[in-house]
Amino acid sequence: MKTIAVIAPGAMGSAVALRLTGEGARVLTALDGRSEATRARAAAAGMEAAGDEALAGADIVLSIVPPAEAEALARRLSPHLAAAARKPVYVDANAVSPETVRRIGGIVAATGTPFLDGAIIGLPPKPGTPGPRVYVSGDDPAPAMALRELGLDLRVCPGGVGAASSLKMSYAGINKGLTALAALMVLAADRAGAGEALLAELAENEPQLLARFAKGLPDMVPKAYRWAPEMREIAGFLGQDEAGRQVFAGNARLYERLSGDDGTEDIAALLRFAQTAAGRG
Amino acid sequence: MKTIAVIAPGAMGSAVALRLTGEGARVLTALDGRSEATRARAAAAGMEAAGDEALAGADIVLSIVPPAEAEALARRLSPHLAAAARKPVYVDANAVSPETVRRIGGIVAATGTPFLDGAIIGLPPKPGTPGPRVYVSGDDPAPAMALRELGLDLRVCPGGVGAASSLKMSYAGINKGLTALAALMVLAADRAGAGEALLAELAENEPQLLARFAKGLPDMVPKAYRWAPEMREIAGFLGQDEAGRQVFAGNARLYERLSGDDGTEDIAALLRFAQTAAGRG
Repeated sequence: MKTIAVIAPGAMGSAVALRLTGEGARVLTALDGRSEATRARAAAAGMEAAGDEALAGADIVLSIVPPAEAEALARRLSPHLAAAARKPVYVDANAVSPETVRRIGGIVAATGTPFLDGAIIGLPPKPGTPGPRVYVSGDDPAPAMALRELGLDLRVCPGGVGAASSLKMSYAGINKGLTALAALMVLAADRAGAGEALLAELAENEPQLLARFAKGLPDMVPKAYRWAPEMREIAGFLGQDEAGRQVFAGNARLYERLSGDDGTEDIAALLRFAQTAAGRG
Repeated sequence: MKTIAVIAPGAMGSAVALRLTGEGARVLTALDGRSEATRARAAAAGMEAAGDEALAGADIVLSIVPPAEAEALARRLSPHLAAAARKPVYVDANAVSPETVRRIGGIVAATGTPFLDGAIIGLPPKPGTPGPRVYVSGDDPAPAMALRELGLDLRVCPGGVGAASSLKMSYAGINKGLTALAALMVLAADRAGAGEALLAELAENEPQLLARFAKGLPDMVPKAYRWAPEMREIAGFLGQDEAGRQVFAGNARLYERLSGDDGTEDIAALLRFAQTAAGRG
């Protein structure tokens, strides 16, 4: 039986864990200091609480945490990885820039542990669906292949560490950048009294985009607080491209505003637009 | 017979003029100091050269110029509009912000000439197609209705001066902002060696967006120099929304880079991506 450490049991981590336990894997996770709700979600996914030493002794360590915590997790586990007699493969599956994942890879490699860059594209797996694509890139993706047998849609992204993260950044940039663009323009049209006219014009000439916004804007609302730092990672990913950094700094700022107290009226306007749009679809 | 002044005979202006002359209108334009190519295009559209006094004496004056020239045209024609015994209706159909169009409206109104905010959404009309939507907004859209009988897809946008421009800004912001987003992410993925992986991921999970990019990126290339100032107008339109201003300042910067000497390699990379994408479609 394979043992997989999935850290942490968030929405994505616990859904991945449920898939893995359903296919017969043992899944460990870290629960110290976590809420009752998180513990209950982990238990429902069949995850077992484990200390850092046991996590480092798994066959595969899957890091699925908020982007800002990815590096700290690698640092925390590194003494245990260094001490482990049999090394796992460490997969960083977070929405971090290639630069960040290379730094994390350096921390893990220093312990003698094989490292893979990972990227999860798509929504958390639900029973009966193939689930999101899980890309890995790095020197030797073979040890991660066990995840495919355990029900994940595992794919190898050509290129070394940084390739999977680059794919994730560019794909997420298109999707979440488009939602940001829609929010900006819907709000601006609304402020100018042209919201209805914009909706009618889109319904007639861009029905696919309008349908996307009708679903995408409400889906964004509860995630805006997470998307803000992800937009900053994408700005970092854009590195030398000053125009792109500016665009994604603006996107980050938008999602920060929408997830804060100042965003209440904007959110209401976006939900009204999406509801009317859905009614026309 | 209606007389319409269409200034200037650019790609959009001459295509609109051809539609109007085809429906029996007399179309005047300004050709002083214009190139032989422009004069030939105007002649092919059935447009007649006219001085500013004659232009101001038309039934309808349609301003279709680069955004930065819209206000100067109104100033140039204003003494002739003031002197005209029978006032035309002046329609500013340019991609300018509501603030700019209100300033232009003020210049025209001071001459006693009725003014309408206008917005052209879509590509120049071609024979056999309905052509772009031509929106007007303002106190009394009735005098512009003659354009509908002359073959234009004329529509009234509810709201006063500024409403049609707001619709144009928000619609163009979505379309041209999405092309900018695609360009940024394709270039970033390409630099990181993940261009092929991004294309494959889009082909599988976002085929409609990929098809749009395959067409939209090459279409953008010859227009990037015009889109840069249009992005700045949209940044102005976003006014109080600092996040949005930042996004569109970045979009302007991108289109400036792509239309300059520094953009050659980026353009080549975008065209390669679009060509491969079209091959998969």
